[in-house]
Amino acid sequence: MSELSRATVSRLPRYLRLIEDSADSRTVSSEALAAAAGVNAANVRRDLSDLGFQGTRGVGYSAPALRDRIRRELGIERRRKVAIIGAGNLGTALARYSGLSKRGFDVVAIYDVDAGRIGQLIGDVKIQDLEEMPSDCSFGCFDMAILAVPASSAQPVTDDLVAAGIASILNFAPIRVTVPDTVAVRQVDLSTELQILSYYG
Amino acid sequence: MSELSRATVSRLPRYLRLIEDSADSRTVSSEALAAAAGVNAANVRRDLSDLGFQGTRGVGYSAPALRDRIRRELGIERRRKVAIIGAGNLGTALARYSGLSKRGFDVVAIYDVDAGRIGQLIGDVKIQDLEEMPSDCSFGCFDMAILAVPASSAQPVTDDLVAAGIASILNFAPIRVTVPDTVAVRQVDLSTELQILSYYG
Repeated sequence: MSELSRATVSRLPRYLRLIEDSADSRTVSSEALAAAAGVNAANVRRDLSDLGFQGTRGVGYSAPALRDRIRRELGIERRRKVAIIGAGNLGTALARYSGLSKRGFDVVAIYDVDAGRIGQLIGDVKIQDLEEMPSDCSFGCFDMAILAVPASSAQPVTDDLVAAGIASILNFAPIRVTVPDTVAVRQVDLSTELQILSYYG
Repeated sequence: MSELSRATVSRLPRYLRLIEDSADSRTVSSEALAAAAGVNAANVRRDLSDLGFQGTRGVGYSAPALRDRIRRELGIERRRKVAIIGAGNLGTALARYSGLSKRGFDVVAIYDVDAGRIGQLIGDVKIQDLEEMPSDCSFGCFDMAILAVPASSAQPVTDDLVAAGIASILNFAPIRVTVPDTVAVRQVDLSTELQILSYYG
């Protein structure tokens, strides 16, 4: 299997969402997938062909098979264990966000440096001292991290995560962090969405 | 000017970010723009050509002219006034998120239904009763809304915003909302980012 284009990868979660949320659990059409991802049906057919996935003319794609194929491609055929770094407003909101668990991500750890927060519960996860993070990592407690820390802490915390062996980091801090080539980082900039909305609104 | 493709529109904020954050304020190359948006240089040249924008061979694009052109295209050549609906953890985090103001969005109003929150300050904006929202809208107090409410409130609040004349809504609630064709909605699903990260991590 060759590597997928970034554009294709970015559409897979939208296809998956449509299938997971759909009432019809048997088949899904390229037109429905296209509408969900905001592209045309030809794009969809090319994306799924890149996945080695074929539909049946006049019927569409098998929904369960496509769901499993996308989950496998995204590496979420098993549930993933996520840690949230930073228990401020954003970290707390993310820890409580029901969409994560629904989509296969379990928040198993939350870290902060604030002695006033450490030991408190968010849902049923206890906020731990950030100093405990490296040893939790080494026990395989989690394999992805969400950064919800101030801009000034983002790079040092990232360095600690990388040193502890974490290879996937989702960064909500409003600053770009630097990592080795072996580590995947996604930078979430909430203002991007508002700018795109501004075009259409 | 014909309508831009969704893919092109989604890349414009990334191009703009690179220019705004760049140390070199005079020129920008298609290669640098390509790296910022995660596409190839040919994509960039096509996007900017769709904007009616031409570079100079061997020099690149004029950074200030491209910045102004993208801002105009996105409708953010003037600062936009944003209201946040919901002053829970996510709404509070968004109201405090420095990236919004930096990218041209001013949070001018925050609404909630919780009597315990109404009247409190987030930064220098006072949380108001959601019931005051329609009259604030009618005075042109804001023109975009961010929904940071529970899933169960998302549709009724959206209906109120639409009735009050708001045409741009960014929805963080983990549920799809229905609006008339004249209203633009973007649904932010935070788990999408984790799924994409999972592919690369």
